[in-house]
Amino acid sequence: MAHIDLPEGLPGILGPMAFRPETAGPLNELAEVLLRGDSTLSRGERELIASYVSRLNDCHFCHTSHGAFAARQLEGGWEVVDDVVAAPTTTDAVSPKMRALLGIAALVQRGGACVSEEAVRSAREEGASDVEIHDTVLIAAAFCMFNRYVDGLATWAPADRADYEDSAAMVTEHGYTAAAPGPA
Amino acid sequence: MAHIDLPEGLPGILGPMAFRPETAGPLNELAEVLLRGDSTLSRGERELIASYVSRLNDCHFCHTSHGAFAARQLEGGWEVVDDVVAAPTTTDAVSPKMRALLGIAALVQRGGACVSEEAVRSAREEGASDVEIHDTVLIAAAFCMFNRYVDGLATWAPADRADYEDSAAMVTEHGYTAAAPGPA
Repeated sequence: MAHIDLPEGLPGILGPMAFRPETAGPLNELAEVLLRGDSTLSRGERELIASYVSRLNDCHFCHTSHGAFAARQLEGGWEVVDDVVAAPTTTDAVSPKMRALLGIAALVQRGGACVSEEAVRSAREEGASDVEIHDTVLIAAAFCMFNRYVDGLATWAPADRADYEDSAAMVTEHGYTAAAPGPA
Repeated sequence: MAHIDLPEGLPGILGPMAFRPETAGPLNELAEVLLRGDSTLSRGERELIASYVSRLNDCHFCHTSHGAFAARQLEGGWEVVDDVVAAPTTTDAVSPKMRALLGIAALVQRGGACVSEEAVRSAREEGASDVEIHDTVLIAAAFCMFNRYVDGLATWAPADRADYEDSAAMVTEHGYTAAAPGPA
């Protein structure tokens, strides 16, 4: 049972967002800009970073939902997500640049000061731009927020990946701000 | 030196926000709603939670800037901020309800799943409402993002508290969305 009296039947972050639409507005706008706005990282790649960081934070809802969003937008589907979790530094399911960016994301998850010059240099050597490094840091940091928001209120989440397919179809087609609860 | 090529002369989060106004927009809106919007927690109390969590994350810029925003809006000023950092569970610089909410914030900082039913019950027993518990969890979670954003890019920050007074005057008077860089 959730720690506070949330609207029933809404999994994960959707409960708190319906409970507090005032904050849901900017949270959904942030997700929309960061994960779906103009970028040289594909939407699938950005969702992959989000899902990976959520796994490091043991947030089942965010790992699985953003994993489903990534899987739907990446050639290779869920296998890429699972390979990255299993072997982030060596998997060839993603490019060397993405491996380096996932390395930065993992350091951000541990703490901002953990991001080393060496990790940033590696990413740059693999072709990452300043904007890509910035966005990776902010995506990883944002999911350290979203994950804590979802689990800090003890929201419920479906166990099975299959139960995330409908929302994956909706979010990948219409985005985060279309159907989500926003400010009144 | 920052990990990426940020506009010069802007301390802490202001550099990355000027670098990437697309994401600065929703980030500032989130801070505005969460820390200054309608709430039964005062603005000073919410800034205190933000400053305290930033201290737990060792983020000097956010601890000091939000400490200055709290100090300006709380009777007792910086002493309250320092007392809370020194003795969060016992200080009488804040109400029993605030002590309980700060306890929840500290658990969120460690990880979402660390927030216990007992901690939530304690806060409720001291008079905290569901919205206050929700907002405390989200403020703490949000500063786990802001802190990582600021330090994950290795931004610079003034050492002295005195250097945060001008921005404290501006933010407490005009808010987070007034002067900050927003989307073009």
